[in-house]
Amino acid sequence: MLLCLSGCGEPDIVGDPESGAEKAAICGQCHGQDGISFIPIYPNLAGQKQQYMELQLEAFRAGRRINAAMTPHAQNLSDQDIADLSAFYANLDPRGKQ
Amino acid sequence: MLLCLSGCGEPDIVGDPESGAEKAAICGQCHGQDGISFIPIYPNLAGQKQQYMELQLEAFRAGRRINAAMTPHAQNLSDQDIADLSAFYANLDPRGKQ
Repeated sequence: MLLCLSGCGEPDIVGDPESGAEKAAICGQCHGQDGISFIPIYPNLAGQKQQYMELQLEAFRAGRRINAAMTPHAQNLSDQDIADLSAFYANLDPRGKQ
Repeated sequence: MLLCLSGCGEPDIVGDPESGAEKAAICGQCHGQDGISFIPIYPNLAGQKQQYMELQLEAFRAGRRINAAMTPHAQNLSDQDIADLSAFYANLDPRGKQ
């Protein structure tokens, strides 16, 4: 049986943007509460592809992708956290707060 | 003397969005000609932070970040290519073609 965390076949976990909004408080310190980053070397996340963000958070959590700032934040995320955060940012207006 | 490729201190290389548009033809096949990706696991690039994209392309080129699709494309990019591509995408409307 192939274990599917998220994003393949019937999703076991469905991201909830509202839960993601609560969980994103700390992420907003770099990525902006509206998903537009304050810091030029950190990406905007507003309107980004949900599945892409899930894969990146999973990669940071698993150490397949390494970044001094992201790794500590991703290490303790649950699959549901990853799905909620990704859903939250994916649903934001890509231009940021309007 | 600290060699600065791009994005630190006085930039040696300045990205040209018009050159970037020409160089981005192949990138558009996944990331969309307007920077909005066709494929859920590949990121939108429209309006993304220029410096962030430069760092990611440098990381893919150097093998610090690994992706089966991106690595072959990044391996032969010059510093100027990286700056031009990043400038091109950073200047696009984050909502994509309007």
